[in-house]
Amino acid sequence: MDIRVIAPVTSQECEARAFEQYSAGARRDTRISTVLLERGPASIESAYEEMLAAPGVLAQILEAEREGMDAVISNCMADPGVAAGREIASIPVIGPAEASMHLAAMLGERFSVVTVLERLIPALRRCAHASGLSQQLASVRAVNIPVLELTDRTRAATALVHEAIRAVQDDGAHVIVLGCTGMAGLAGAVQQGLAQAGINDVPVVDPAMAALKIAEALVDMGLSHSKPSWTDVGATGSGV
Amino acid sequence: MDIRVIAPVTSQECEARAFEQYSAGARRDTRISTVLLERGPASIESAYEEMLAAPGVLAQILEAEREGMDAVISNCMADPGVAAGREIASIPVIGPAEASMHLAAMLGERFSVVTVLERLIPALRRCAHASGLSQQLASVRAVNIPVLELTDRTRAATALVHEAIRAVQDDGAHVIVLGCTGMAGLAGAVQQGLAQAGINDVPVVDPAMAALKIAEALVDMGLSHSKPSWTDVGATGSGV
Amino acid sequence: MDIRVIAPVTSQECEARAFEQYSAGARRDTRISTVLLERGPASIESAYEEMLAAPGVLAQILEAEREGMDAVISNCMADPGVAAGREIASIPVIGPAEASMHLAAMLGERFSVVTVLERLIPALRRCAHASGLSQQLASVRAVNIPVLELTDRTRAATALVHEAIRAVQDDGAHVIVLGCTGMAGLAGAVQQGLAQAGINDVPVVDPAMAALKIAEALVDMGLSHSKPSWTDVGATGSGV
Amino acid sequence: MDIRVIAPVTSQECEARAFEQYSAGARRDTRISTVLLERGPASIESAYEEMLAAPGVLAQILEAEREGMDAVISNCMADPGVAAGREIASIPVIGPAEASMHLAAMLGERFSVVTVLERLIPALRRCAHASGLSQQLASVRAVNIPVLELTDRTRAATALVHEAIRAVQDDGAHVIVLGCTGMAGLAGAVQQGLAQAGINDVPVVDPAMAALKIAEALVDMGLSHSKPSWTDVGATGSGV
Amino acid sequence: MDIRVIAPVTSQECEARAFEQYSAGARRDTRISTVLLERGPASIESAYEEMLAAPGVLAQILEAEREGMDAVISNCMADPGVAAGREIASIPVIGPAEASMHLAAMLGERFSVVTVLERLIPALRRCAHASGLSQQLASVRAVNIPVLELTDRTRAATALVHEAIRAVQDDGAHVIVLGCTGMAGLAGAVQQGLAQAGINDVPVVDPAMAALKIAEALVDMGLSHSKPSWTDVGATGSGV
Amino acid sequence: MDIRVIAPVTSQECEARAFEQYSAGARRDTRISTVLLERGPASIESAYEEMLAAPGVLAQILEAEREGMDAVISNCMADPGVAAGREIASIPVIGPAEASMHLAAMLGERFSVVTVLERLIPALRRCAHASGLSQQLASVRAVNIPVLELTDRTRAATALVHEAIRAVQDDGAHVIVLGCTGMAGLAGAVQQGLAQAGINDVPVVDPAMAALKIAEALVDMGLSHSKPSWTDVGATGSGV
Repeated sequence: MDIRVIAPVTSQECEARAFEQYSAGARRDTRISTVLLERGPASIESAYEEMLAAPGVLAQILEAEREGMDAVISNCMADPGVAAGREIASIPVIGPAEASMHLAAMLGERFSVVTVLERLIPALRRCAHASGLSQQLASVRAVNIPVLELTDRTRAATALVHEAIRAVQDDGAHVIVLGCTGMAGLAGAVQQGLAQAGINDVPVVDPAMAALKIAEALVDMGLSHSKPSWTDVGATGSGV
Repeated sequence: MDIRVIAPVTSQECEARAFEQYSAGARRDTRISTVLLERGPASIESAYEEMLAAPGVLAQILEAEREGMDAVISNCMADPGVAAGREIASIPVIGPAEASMHLAAMLGERFSVVTVLERLIPALRRCAHASGLSQQLASVRAVNIPVLELTDRTRAATALVHEAIRAVQDDGAHVIVLGCTGMAGLAGAVQQGLAQAGINDVPVVDPAMAALKIAEALVDMGLSHSKPSWTDVGATGSGV
Repeated sequence: MDIRVIAPVTSQECEARAFEQYSAGARRDTRISTVLLERGPASIESAYEEMLAAPGVLAQILEAEREGMDAVISNCMADPGVAAGREIASIPVIGPAEASMHLAAMLGERFSVVTVLERLIPALRRCAHASGLSQQLASVRAVNIPVLELTDRTRAATALVHEAIRAVQDDGAHVIVLGCTGMAGLAGAVQQGLAQAGINDVPVVDPAMAALKIAEALVDMGLSHSKPSWTDVGATGSGV
Repeated sequence: MDIRVIAPVTSQECEARAFEQYSAGARRDTRISTVLLERGPASIESAYEEMLAAPGVLAQILEAEREGMDAVISNCMADPGVAAGREIASIPVIGPAEASMHLAAMLGERFSVVTVLERLIPALRRCAHASGLSQQLASVRAVNIPVLELTDRTRAATALVHEAIRAVQDDGAHVIVLGCTGMAGLAGAVQQGLAQAGINDVPVVDPAMAALKIAEALVDMGLSHSKPSWTDVGATGSGV
Repeated sequence: MDIRVIAPVTSQECEARAFEQYSAGARRDTRISTVLLERGPASIESAYEEMLAAPGVLAQILEAEREGMDAVISNCMADPGVAAGREIASIPVIGPAEASMHLAAMLGERFSVVTVLERLIPALRRCAHASGLSQQLASVRAVNIPVLELTDRTRAATALVHEAIRAVQDDGAHVIVLGCTGMAGLAGAVQQGLAQAGINDVPVVDPAMAALKIAEALVDMGLSHSKPSWTDVGATGSGV
Repeated sequence: MDIRVIAPVTSQECEARAFEQYSAGARRDTRISTVLLERGPASIESAYEEMLAAPGVLAQILEAEREGMDAVISNCMADPGVAAGREIASIPVIGPAEASMHLAAMLGERFSVVTVLERLIPALRRCAHASGLSQQLASVRAVNIPVLELTDRTRAATALVHEAIRAVQDDGAHVIVLGCTGMAGLAGAVQQGLAQAGINDVPVVDPAMAALKIAEALVDMGLSHSKPSWTDVGATGSGV
């Protein structure tokens, strides 16, 4: 199957990293392709930047469907353009936040999300509420490292482990969700760090992989999102 | 005080009608000014069109603050750009959906929203959930008249009365919220229609007036939204 | 418009202070008048005292309507007599707790209430639940100063700032609601205290002003509470 | 043990009927005594009348404790004076609505309440919410017979059966709660009526008996309500 | 009346202790009889052991009904076999967890459960959720003493008091529920321990006594669980 | 990868059908193996039969892990033995109900489950509540065909389509979940039936396929359930 991953930013490095990570996680019969935005923010750390990214993401979702993709992923924990994308496209449109939170809810009684910046906490809490998972959400925590500095993997992993331990010990989390797709690839390191602190068997969910696996599952099952839930506007919207 | 009303569309007629209605409802010491978007949708009846409108709305919110407005209203029941606008502006940014639902919740045990199209129902239900008012929401109904045809006031009022009666009798609503700012000015007619059907003392909330009165209230109290809830991105975002 | 404020106690000082504060906050076209109870408690710090106050408040609500008032406020954070008052009167009957919590919910994701005594905490939590705002309530805290000692404004402000800081830092509050109408007028001082502790942009809601502004808003909109929600008993009840 | 039942009205007939019914349902080792109010409403069918009854109920609760009663019941589905009574008394203060709804929640997945008048529906819904039983409440229905006309037992039973059948068939109720203590003694007739309609094994809860049995249970266990939940005002309140 | 208590384990000591405690708490007109399982776990501290116990419990529930018992109690905080038992039996089938949590919810605004082992915490939280009491649950805590070591009553009481104090002070509990039927008989000691720490009027609920008293109440009222809620499978199931 | 499917019944036909359906839906690199129970019920249509099946399911879960399986599925909509199985095994233990409801919640705003018998409705509602998806559950409906008669595929499909249409039109469902693993393979027919009734774009989720795809996803991600959520009892339980 063909899965298109949209890096909803203008940074080629982000797109390259997404291609690498999704390709590594994809099944053998899954072809990953990635695109970025012509115009948009450098990174998404606010509703404001999400809004700036949205028109470009929507154009790319339409393009993915036109090219015959089987599913499309908006690769950011704000799930930018996902709701609107489901109105204009018929193929599955997947957001990492929604996918990873539902997976986490299946893995344990209560999960915590560890994201980049304090200021993203309310938005992630709202996402859990909107997904009906308020009761399963133990907490949202932040490592206070901006997205673009996550390239320092050691620093990022150390900070993630620190907050994940607090999520388990102080907030009663049983599952950890990495709260930024820029953290993709760090789940193993966090798992190890938890183990070194004596915390075993607390799964760590990589949101990019969650999005990919849910996309593969839906394509296998021949399913896409329900149109009555997302107002079918067809291709009649004013041209993007 | 100075309140800026953004018509988040490109239609001059919409802006003109907004000016008229808000001016009629404003206190004597409130000056209303309106703007529309240079680029954007003709009307907003989907998340897709809301996304298309958002960049323009954000630019107008920044402009309103720059011009010294005391508060700004995004005049559409999708509250387009409101969350992102609260990140970039310090003055109150008001959305008619949130304002009218909270007012309705103070007026009775359960309210119904009557909007334009079926396809907007899920989005309005999500808004009630996001505002914490799930339990107070009796139903969302639609008159199946597109926004741009609401100019036929008689047809609109008749359809609204019909659905409002069903909301009261079938869904147990105690308060009616008009579910589109294009319905501004029709609350009286709906109230009368309900009375003719023997339904008295069921208040009908006009969402534009709700937004205006909440804006006036906040300005009087010297209050604006909480920054920790909407991630302060200051003026540092990439220029709109 | 004419707004009647009922001081639901027997203390003339309370009534005088209410008159002063409401008059200071009212719009130019709003006339404030106040009354107190002939028989009732000195202050309301329990359901017991609320019960003692209720018959007097109900009599005053009927009197306010008879005199042609446009709205009536029961000036206590227990909203004493408000539910019963809505049954017997047609004009808006406003309670500061309900009004301030809904305003707070519009201003941020989570609010805390800071009230006078520990023993009032459960009742304020119940009020948030009854208003559908459980999820938005971060905490209720107490300064442990009885209502009648709030006259020492410096002590009250210091204690309020202390608890407000803890609400923000420990409980994750984004908005503070002053939890007693005896604290009216202290919102500015609390805001300043928060700022001195480095906490900016956390709005502080004065419940008396919230009640007043919601009352003004409803009168402007020609709205009153829904009768089906509060069982119309007309004037036929046994004489108060 | 000694249980005092307060008929929170002024009608001697109500008190007499309460004495008869409670005595019939009491254990052999339970002594029932009843009192009525010197001043108060003839019946309670509104928050307004509940307020009128409250001072008298509180006085009777204090009196019951003074006389050495083991528990006291406020015999009305509005649970009048129960919250305030728990502040001033140390013995268990029981309300039929709370007791019967919790019992119903133990007997099945979803219960409906069938009460006297439409206008009491919102208040009973609020009681279910306040007890945390929103999800278990299938519906509240009314037979449209005023309390004082429930003396016509045949008419009352017929109407109750009719609404109970609708609650089961239309609202999916698995348990029926009689929604007025004036209906005490009719549970058997309603059960029979349901059986004649082919509905078996749907328990019908008599709220007066529920209150009595919970009172007996608490006295047996040596338990009373938690003071931290209802603000201990001791005997220091201004004399009733 | 005749109440059968099933010790859902194979230990004769457990059965003997249950007989003693239930007999001590029963009304004079209640005859207690106890049984244990022929095959099953030594104690129940996991869903796994609950599953192992279930077939034996179900057989004993059928036997209790066959012998003409008025009600049957599955004496373990996991309520093992209760849901399935309600399908096959018509007499009341009572579980201590459900009974004690509902009683606790009537006694105060928020309760905490103090159980034996950490690993039982999620299951007890799920029980509160399933009973609709999520909002009333302040916390679940563990003393970290296995069921079979609760025979050391002094150690058990000391640990229970320690955690109960933390539940009150740190988690805001107003009521304590002992979280294991092996703790039956310790409520008084915990109450005393709380009092010595200056915490008065926080009721401590013994789950075995709660189950017994609810059983007695239902038998008195002639009520049993609703069949539509627990799928009547009659005696047609494959023989146990 | 190797996935073991447990048919939690004694019918060889059920096992054979499970093998066929899972094999048809599995990825090329997934090896499906199936087992049935030596002792247990013929079908599971009650909590009683679920209890009878559980010991056998637990034995098979342990056996699957011993044989090196990567994941194990308990192939019944009651998710029998899943909670207990997660305590004793480290590999993912998947239940079709939980998996299909979470997938449905990602596909639309509200889903309905259509199951075999009326009497299973409360249990499936409880499953949705336990998964935190109460708000997303539009309804549970039944076709009134016992599991063992689902072999008449035409009759089953016709009845499913009938109830699915009612779920969409009367209950407002946007997604349909087939409520019995015996309905596996019928999703396409139901989709077609909906389309013939003019209902397009309402996805129909096959619970067996949902379980399989979630199993494959978790194995790919190297994740299993959180041990703190399901009380690790290791291999120390008394031998099954």
